[in-house]
Amino acid sequence: MVGPFGGITVAAILRAIEEQPDVHGDPVALTVNFLAPVVDGEFDISARAVRTNRSNQHWIVELSQDGDVKTTATAVFGLRRDTWTDIESMPPAVAAPEDVEPQAFPVPIRWTQNYEMRFVDGAVPGLDAEPSESSTTTLWVRDQPPRPLDFAGLAAMCDVFYPRVFLRLGRVMAAGTISMTVYFHSTRDELISHGDDFVLATVHAQRFARGYFDQSGQIWDRRGELLATTHQIVYFKS
Amino acid sequence: MVGPFGGITVAAILRAIEEQPDVHGDPVALTVNFLAPVVDGEFDISARAVRTNRSNQHWIVELSQDGDVKTTATAVFGLRRDTWTDIESMPPAVAAPEDVEPQAFPVPIRWTQNYEMRFVDGAVPGLDAEPSESSTTTLWVRDQPPRPLDFAGLAAMCDVFYPRVFLRLGRVMAAGTISMTVYFHSTRDELISHGDDFVLATVHAQRFARGYFDQSGQIWDRRGELLATTHQIVYFKS
Repeated sequence: MVGPFGGITVAAILRAIEEQPDVHGDPVALTVNFLAPVVDGEFDISARAVRTNRSNQHWIVELSQDGDVKTTATAVFGLRRDTWTDIESMPPAVAAPEDVEPQAFPVPIRWTQNYEMRFVDGAVPGLDAEPSESSTTTLWVRDQPPRPLDFAGLAAMCDVFYPRVFLRLGRVMAAGTISMTVYFHSTRDELISHGDDFVLATVHAQRFARGYFDQSGQIWDRRGELLATTHQIVYFKS
Repeated sequence: MVGPFGGITVAAILRAIEEQPDVHGDPVALTVNFLAPVVDGEFDISARAVRTNRSNQHWIVELSQDGDVKTTATAVFGLRRDTWTDIESMPPAVAAPEDVEPQAFPVPIRWTQNYEMRFVDGAVPGLDAEPSESSTTTLWVRDQPPRPLDFAGLAAMCDVFYPRVFLRLGRVMAAGTISMTVYFHSTRDELISHGDDFVLATVHAQRFARGYFDQSGQIWDRRGELLATTHQIVYFKS
């Protein structure tokens, strides 16, 4: 609400780390903190590998404009190896994306036009919306125009959910992400094999209180693979 | 498994921020990354307020020993104000702590003796344990000896869960937290009114794959208030 789509900042930070010559492994965890709005114009990302272990690497990142820090982040990159594997969570039971109508936001927000969104549950409340007892939103989503999925694109999609408080109260108000975390479960090869297909994104909130709420989300593919899990704390004024 | 209880490091970092003269507000979010084991002896915590806004403040923290960074963290502190409030999640339906037997860990691990744990579900697997289909653990827990709850103590309790993969596979193996996040939902006054009573802590994993799994947890009080929500990514060797 007070700057560009948070997901693009998250993606730019992740990509900045991926492009460092000394990067070791693939993304495992990323936390991004939104300190102040990034404004139109140039920005600098400084990425520092604080420690490189045998199997993982820890980063601290700052994004600044004119010397003013706008975003901070920490990231863990790591090597992956074969171990026992299990997806314990279940994806929501939904229709295929081809059987769900694409839907635009009720008001034209620029970044939302960069995604094709097919809401299965909890679409953006319209002007005549009622409060909802559930904060759950589930949608099929892909880049528009379609673009092969990669770690940066996946990280951006973790911020594709509009603020949960809009859904609960049935109206739009001031709200913005303060801090978000992404845990990456997929390998680079799995993302390549995903191509530009839709992902199934689902999210719900746990507690709303005194100007903040948290939300937790999952990003699935249509084969039932859990690609990423994600969490946010969001500021709101009701 | 390769250092002290992560929760004590998390608590020390949070307290270090709370003790800064320019701190603004109370804890809202904290992410701690475990780069290398903290060893017995002195450690230094450097806490830097990167930005102070009207209603919140962003911190970057590094914990080091002999110049070697062992832990990094980012934190958001903030002012709280009255807004619409709702707890959307439900606490697990469990017996009162007085009706559950306290239980020690099967092997004596030092930090576990600093907590009184009354497991309702998913206790630590013993030597003859079988694999479990669920990674859920739920327990009543408080400091031992009892100690009034504060933000640092609450943050430490967010790391009170043993690794979920032990429960799923019914055995102990090498595992350790790489990064954890805590979202604080309570005010300082609410924590004071909680006193030294038990909290109800519950956790489950979402995906285990290629040496990592994630887990999500909630910390409740017995009145059904959701005090904190917490997430981790954990390394394991199976």
